[in-house]
Amino acid sequence: MREVLAEAAFQLYLERGFERTTVDDIVARAGVGRRSFFRYFPSKEDAVFPDHESCLAEMTAFLDAASDERDAVDVVCDGARIVLRMYASNPEFSVQRYRLTREVPGLRTYELSVVRRYERTLAGYLRRRWESEPDGALRAEVVAASVVAAHNNGLRSWLRSGGEGDAEMAVDAALALVRQVWGQAARQPAGDPNEEVVVMVAPKGAPMWRVIQQVESALRDD
Amino acid sequence: MREVLAEAAFQLYLERGFERTTVDDIVARAGVGRRSFFRYFPSKEDAVFPDHESCLAEMTAFLDAASDERDAVDVVCDGARIVLRMYASNPEFSVQRYRLTREVPGLRTYELSVVRRYERTLAGYLRRRWESEPDGALRAEVVAASVVAAHNNGLRSWLRSGGEGDAEMAVDAALALVRQVWGQAARQPAGDPNEEVVVMVAPKGAPMWRVIQQVESALRDD
Repeated sequence: MREVLAEAAFQLYLERGFERTTVDDIVARAGVGRRSFFRYFPSKEDAVFPDHESCLAEMTAFLDAASDERDAVDVVCDGARIVLRMYASNPEFSVQRYRLTREVPGLRTYELSVVRRYERTLAGYLRRRWESEPDGALRAEVVAASVVAAHNNGLRSWLRSGGEGDAEMAVDAALALVRQVWGQAARQPAGDPNEEVVVMVAPKGAPMWRVIQQVESALRDD
Repeated sequence: MREVLAEAAFQLYLERGFERTTVDDIVARAGVGRRSFFRYFPSKEDAVFPDHESCLAEMTAFLDAASDERDAVDVVCDGARIVLRMYASNPEFSVQRYRLTREVPGLRTYELSVVRRYERTLAGYLRRRWESEPDGALRAEVVAASVVAAHNNGLRSWLRSGGEGDAEMAVDAALALVRQVWGQAARQPAGDPNEEVVVMVAPKGAPMWRVIQQVESALRDD
């Protein structure tokens, strides 16, 4: 029933436009009563994004179950991938919805609030993992925002291409930048400063992110 | 007139609640006709954030005028500070609005779309600065999101404290984290790899961000 309503709504939005479609139109198309609609969706906007609630629940469950042994940044990147897989599982619908959302300001606003909920969920996880660290709460919010921005950058490239190619590869490439900069920061404990040292040589004019890559691989090299 | 309307609207929102205040109530309190309201504000929500449009215009003008000689990350951090100064210039109003916004979902959504416009403006500037660099567009979005997240973290601490203390100091402390991680990355040109080298020694267990700080100061040390 929920899926039937969402599908009827979406088809009507594409045919007539979002604004000109009423809830009455949707229930007539789906062949059910008006109350049924509001039993499943609080608003017309919600029917455009029928999977976000379950996706958010899946993300929350995934984060709750993640081992504290894992790098916290790796965990939130994997959490973000759950959203990506939802989009990638239905390319045609995702691409059509992307186009529709760009045309309807109300849907864009709705989407922003959904994205914000994912970001808060990821930030909440990082905050817990880093609660004993100085600036842990600040870093949690900055890293969560970075993960969401990178994820959306990769997702948007894939949607703009019309859903061609490998969505996960596009998003993984974008997330790699965040992991490169923040991943190690989260994992490395302070340790005994005299224990072991890394000596690194870099060209003076090297871009910082390349230097970071080198340092990172040196620190990892056990 | 615009300010009179915004003030009347805000007072009524505080007295009666946002939802229960009508545009008729607002114009009656301000002593003007109904049309005047819509001449200045497209919606009830807009009257709660009367300064964002001019603030966004100021940010855009600031970015347009910024020298390309400056570190792009420093420039966007300064751009974000324009927003902060708008809040800090009127602490009482900002704190009351923060409390109101937290209670009214429609205002929170509105605020999200405002924040998103700032983020897009900052990302647009960075994209232009980094257009010739690999992953420039991706980094532009990730850094803009980081700047906004750090700015909002500092701003929120200040608002939660009831507007006590130095708002700029709170935000600068938060932005320092972003500059530390991304600032140098933006500025260093690739250069001749044989020209000059930096040798850095770091304890193996050091947290990545501390190593970055050390590398950064070494690279800067001319």
